Amino acid sequence: MITGEDEITEWFARQSSLPKDKFPIGIGDDMAQIRLDLNVSVLVTTDMLLDGVHFDLKRVTLKQAGYKAMAVSLSDCAAMATEPVAAVVSVALPKAFGKEELKELHSGITTAGEKYGCALVGGDITRWRAGEPFAISVAMLSKPSSNEPIRRSGAKVSDIICVTGLLGGAGSGRHLEFEPRVKEAIKIAQMVTVNSMIDISDGLSSDLSRICQASGVGAVINAEQIPISDHAQRAESPLSSALNDGEDFELLFTLSQTDSQKLLKNWDAPIPITQIGKIIDTKKIQIEMPDGRISDLQAKGYDHLRK
Amino acid sequence: MITGEDEITEWFARQSSLPKDKFPIGIGDDMAQIRLDLNVSVLVTTDMLLDGVHFDLKRVTLKQAGYKAMAVSLSDCAAMATEPVAAVVSVALPKAFGKEELKELHSGITTAGEKYGCALVGGDITRWRAGEPFAISVAMLSKPSSNEPIRRSGAKVSDIICVTGLLGGAGSGRHLEFEPRVKEAIKIAQMVTVNSMIDISDGLSSDLSRICQASGVGAVINAEQIPISDHAQRAESPLSSALNDGEDFELLFTLSQTDSQKLLKNWDAPIPITQIGKIIDTKKIQIEMPDGRISDLQAKGYDHLRK
Repeated sequence: MITGEDEITEWFARQSSLPKDKFPIGIGDDMAQIRLDLNVSVLVTTDMLLDGVHFDLKRVTLKQAGYKAMAVSLSDCAAMATEPVAAVVSVALPKAFGKEELKELHSGITTAGEKYGCALVGGDITRWRAGEPFAISVAMLSKPSSNEPIRRSGAKVSDIICVTGLLGGAGSGRHLEFEPRVKEAIKIAQMVTVNSMIDISDGLSSDLSRICQASGVGAVINAEQIPISDHAQRAESPLSSALNDGEDFELLFTLSQTDSQKLLKNWDAPIPITQIGKIIDTKKIQIEMPDGRISDLQAKGYDHLRK
Repeated sequence: MITGEDEITEWFARQSSLPKDKFPIGIGDDMAQIRLDLNVSVLVTTDMLLDGVHFDLKRVTLKQAGYKAMAVSLSDCAAMATEPVAAVVSVALPKAFGKEELKELHSGITTAGEKYGCALVGGDITRWRAGEPFAISVAMLSKPSSNEPIRRSGAKVSDIICVTGLLGGAGSGRHLEFEPRVKEAIKIAQMVTVNSMIDISDGLSSDLSRICQASGVGAVINAEQIPISDHAQRAESPLSSALNDGEDFELLFTLSQTDSQKLLKNWDAPIPITQIGKIIDTKKIQIEMPDGRISDLQAKGYDHLRK
């Protein structure tokens, strides 16, 4: 059986030998980068969302489902500080769905797209034979902004670790209407040199572990510094919720101490940026608790293959 | 209820107002075209294939399913005479599927990709909660070859209508291992000026009707000239099978009489090209039978939303 999403991604990545000149970024980052010309490249990502897994159509509207499907890919564009350009959407329709359902879905897709400058340019609609559930897959293209696309693998020892926004408790509703940090990512990348970045899709613990693994470094974060959302504050363990809940879709990034100070000093956008820790030269990922204890942090975030 | 795939595509297209300078080709063709730079553009298509609809995993292997999913999108690249570049693949996995199943699927995907120069650059794997079926969505990028991408909408009155290969009966197995006409399309476009082109995914009658509708013209085809496959010859009505079966994934295209003669005279590839009719200035699509009778041709091909 499969032991996890990352293991499979690594297996897939090992099978491919993409020439670096044509594909500067291959399998295993938030998006792949394809060089089309000496100075022109395009990035691409895809996400499949399933009824009963990523949302429950008994409780959410198709407009919300369409919005979320786009927002998840928009968040991948943000994770690399690239500019969304266009999306194609394919859907598997339950037998009972008709034109009204498609219109509602379409309105969610275009609401998200228009907000972030991403055009819907094509799609494919197929109907299941019997009572099978709704599935939607988005593939999104983006282009580099004035910065180079930011990878997971560039974290350097003694980098400061930062996050945007507040973490945890997204499952209570925020995961359906979150705002991908597209503008914030590009703004940050214009202000300072970001060494590594990812969007927190599966939980801080999992996504920090991905940055560390890709960069061959470790990290120590400070429990007291983690910005915990109001929803997570009401959870049984607010810290565990902020570390592991997933679907925050906030940015997690690392940069030099100098750049970190510069960024925090000059950051005037409404979304907060918080320093939560430091990159270290062991391969461990650790958390310092309020009492000073330092313990290993397990990547306990959401894994769509494990659960 | 939905009355058909084309109606929905038209509704989607009407909702969008894509600026022509950035998106020379929008919703409603085989691929959309996105201009990234003055001289650089990329094309994109997506296709969702479902177990029980496009293949039956009780009878076909995951390798065949993976191959078909890629080949369907490769055929879209062929339909515009563009060069496949890269693909991302998202899958919805039944609960029981493990690493072996993913490896088998991967081998089908890369077999098709390598054959046509299309790199697998990313993907997304998600598992259903319970017993839901396998679904796979491919999004593929291509780039223009030395020709401009060929659209559905350029057919001109008195154009000759041609097809590659043999039509009908693909359901008996060929639909799983067909060869998308990527090389043939580019070769044809290099030899002559093709005014309009489409791949026959839903049957000659449906796809010819799409060309005529997009171009605002009519067509008359000659029953005796339609190249019928061996499989279709064994069907109850070989002609009806060649007209309506779908999944031939051959090229259907129109070009001037002069270019048509030039093409047929110089064509030396193993895949045959056959003239089957002519574009006319009525909006009707007609078929001339062996006895000289001319009757209206109904678009009876496969529609994933109607059936």
